[in-house]
Amino acid sequence: MRTRTTLATAAMLAVAALLGWLMALGRTAALAQDKPDAADPLPSWNDGPSKKAIIEFVTKVTKESSTVFVPREERIATFDNDGTLWVEQPMYNQLAFALDRVKVLAPQHPEWKEKQPFKAVFDGDLKGMVAAGQKGLVELVKATHAGITTEEFESIVKRWLAKARHPRFQRPYTECVYQPMLELLMYLRAKGFKTYIVSGGGVEFMRPWTQKVYGVPPEQVIGSSIKVKYELRDDKPVLARLPEVDFIDDNAGKPVGINKFVGRRPVMAFGNSDGDFEMLQWTTTGKGPRFGLIVHHTDGEREYAYDRGSHFGRLDKALDAASRNGWVVVDMKKEWKRVFPLEK
Amino acid sequence: MRTRTTLATAAMLAVAALLGWLMALGRTAALAQDKPDAADPLPSWNDGPSKKAIIEFVTKVTKESSTVFVPREERIATFDNDGTLWVEQPMYNQLAFALDRVKVLAPQHPEWKEKQPFKAVFDGDLKGMVAAGQKGLVELVKATHAGITTEEFESIVKRWLAKARHPRFQRPYTECVYQPMLELLMYLRAKGFKTYIVSGGGVEFMRPWTQKVYGVPPEQVIGSSIKVKYELRDDKPVLARLPEVDFIDDNAGKPVGINKFVGRRPVMAFGNSDGDFEMLQWTTTGKGPRFGLIVHHTDGEREYAYDRGSHFGRLDKALDAASRNGWVVVDMKKEWKRVFPLEK
Repeated sequence: MRTRTTLATAAMLAVAALLGWLMALGRTAALAQDKPDAADPLPSWNDGPSKKAIIEFVTKVTKESSTVFVPREERIATFDNDGTLWVEQPMYNQLAFALDRVKVLAPQHPEWKEKQPFKAVFDGDLKGMVAAGQKGLVELVKATHAGITTEEFESIVKRWLAKARHPRFQRPYTECVYQPMLELLMYLRAKGFKTYIVSGGGVEFMRPWTQKVYGVPPEQVIGSSIKVKYELRDDKPVLARLPEVDFIDDNAGKPVGINKFVGRRPVMAFGNSDGDFEMLQWTTTGKGPRFGLIVHHTDGEREYAYDRGSHFGRLDKALDAASRNGWVVVDMKKEWKRVFPLEK
Repeated sequence: MRTRTTLATAAMLAVAALLGWLMALGRTAALAQDKPDAADPLPSWNDGPSKKAIIEFVTKVTKESSTVFVPREERIATFDNDGTLWVEQPMYNQLAFALDRVKVLAPQHPEWKEKQPFKAVFDGDLKGMVAAGQKGLVELVKATHAGITTEEFESIVKRWLAKARHPRFQRPYTECVYQPMLELLMYLRAKGFKTYIVSGGGVEFMRPWTQKVYGVPPEQVIGSSIKVKYELRDDKPVLARLPEVDFIDDNAGKPVGINKFVGRRPVMAFGNSDGDFEMLQWTTTGKGPRFGLIVHHTDGEREYAYDRGSHFGRLDKALDAASRNGWVVVDMKKEWKRVFPLEK
């Protein structure tokens, strides 16, 4: 009897989670996939310097009679994800995913209790985790993202996203995306740009949901990755995820990743942190018209206010370089009418 | 006076090379970019089992009322390059490029005279090169493809293609492409497929010309690669090519490469050798309708006849697996009306 009830409850929870996921996707999806309004393609942006610069640039490079016209096939626009398209505070959402995975997997790993960075996870010790640095992060990723097939990993990500809630906003992470940036993605696509995500986050953590949430298909998502191995299991081929780093798509890795996946230099690039510095530099030093933009988190009330000292999304070098290089810096508080899709 | 004449000659040669390249591109480009004829989208294919199988499959998966309908965004078709889209005999064209580069660079490397695989190159000893195996090939690639920026490499490839001629057909390699396959690429794109190249060849060796020759943009080319490093030279960022292998996109590397770059399993896959075996297996064991095809080189008169014993494009395991897996095997001699674009 006990088992039956538990099973029924589990089934109900699974259905509820799936429905939650579909509904969450449905709500933001409508926004990411719509056609922009020709009269005002960026309605959630106040009439300020950033909106003006974006529209002026896009207009001049897409007008065939323009001296700086860019042919359609060369219109590549690359977007960082964490802090540029969705919230990255109080920690990267993928880190929240990894921490939840550590807890799920803990019973199989009694040795984690005394081992960093796992101990810090159980103690809820964010400082300890941050102190473990990129090495600690890689340890966490190896422990929580590997040892399963690509298809199993995809299901785990989807199930997690359906259930998990942002600790402050108390809604799915996929609803903690920036409405002004959704409009920008849509506007650029309507103007013939191919929009790419170029993120330090895991490529297979993003691909299951970027089409529905951002209108960006999996093949236009570039990210960090672990190695996978082709092998037969019960005579069926699978791709097994190995606990071995393949590529870190951050800092100087971003232009390398763009070259690897796209083979063209972007015309426009969008970021929010020092991790995007080289992508912005690579983009804007190309010949012909180029555009770089930084989202500056200045809105502690509606979202977060952070830059130079931050653990996640530290913005320092790139902010100093912005004026020197003519990069547009968006003052989120002043320039965004609303931050999230579901707000009035 | 001597210098001036030499300069003038060099300039004339450069212009001629560039014109040759543009003309060569122009001729095949028209074919790769055209719209297919609705009445007969594959005019260079005889009415045989392969043409029938292709058209039946494409028709059923693109008809919305069909029980095996495939939504547009999932229509991924992957093509091997060497021996599937262009000639790979008497050796891979990229190997011909590497050999020419060895000769150009030889004066700076007196040590190569006594060192394999370089000695074999100077001796015109193809058997010696083949004996050096993949390790020898990697040595050649490191020596001839690295130490320069990505932009410099692109220019070198373009200049070489403009000048080099296939030893038997005596025309540019970009004209040694298969007309029936150009029509197939075009037909699939017209039916909403995204066409990808998935080749053991170097990705940066292919990207400079695949758009014009095959209608496949650089971002849809997946291939082997060496590592590149982002760095500043004279205050300008460049991507420097390092003598270090990044990824080998062959055999089991092909499904890994497809997963890495596309993040979806293909619906259709096309190859001609054992190097394509895993790509075909991965593709055709997916759920729902899938299609695998092997180009079998049976035409020694118009092209080449080879399979099980061949040095380049060896077809053995994949041929045995074809009937077991329902892969279509194209008998080039019987099923192709013409092989190359410029033939009657």
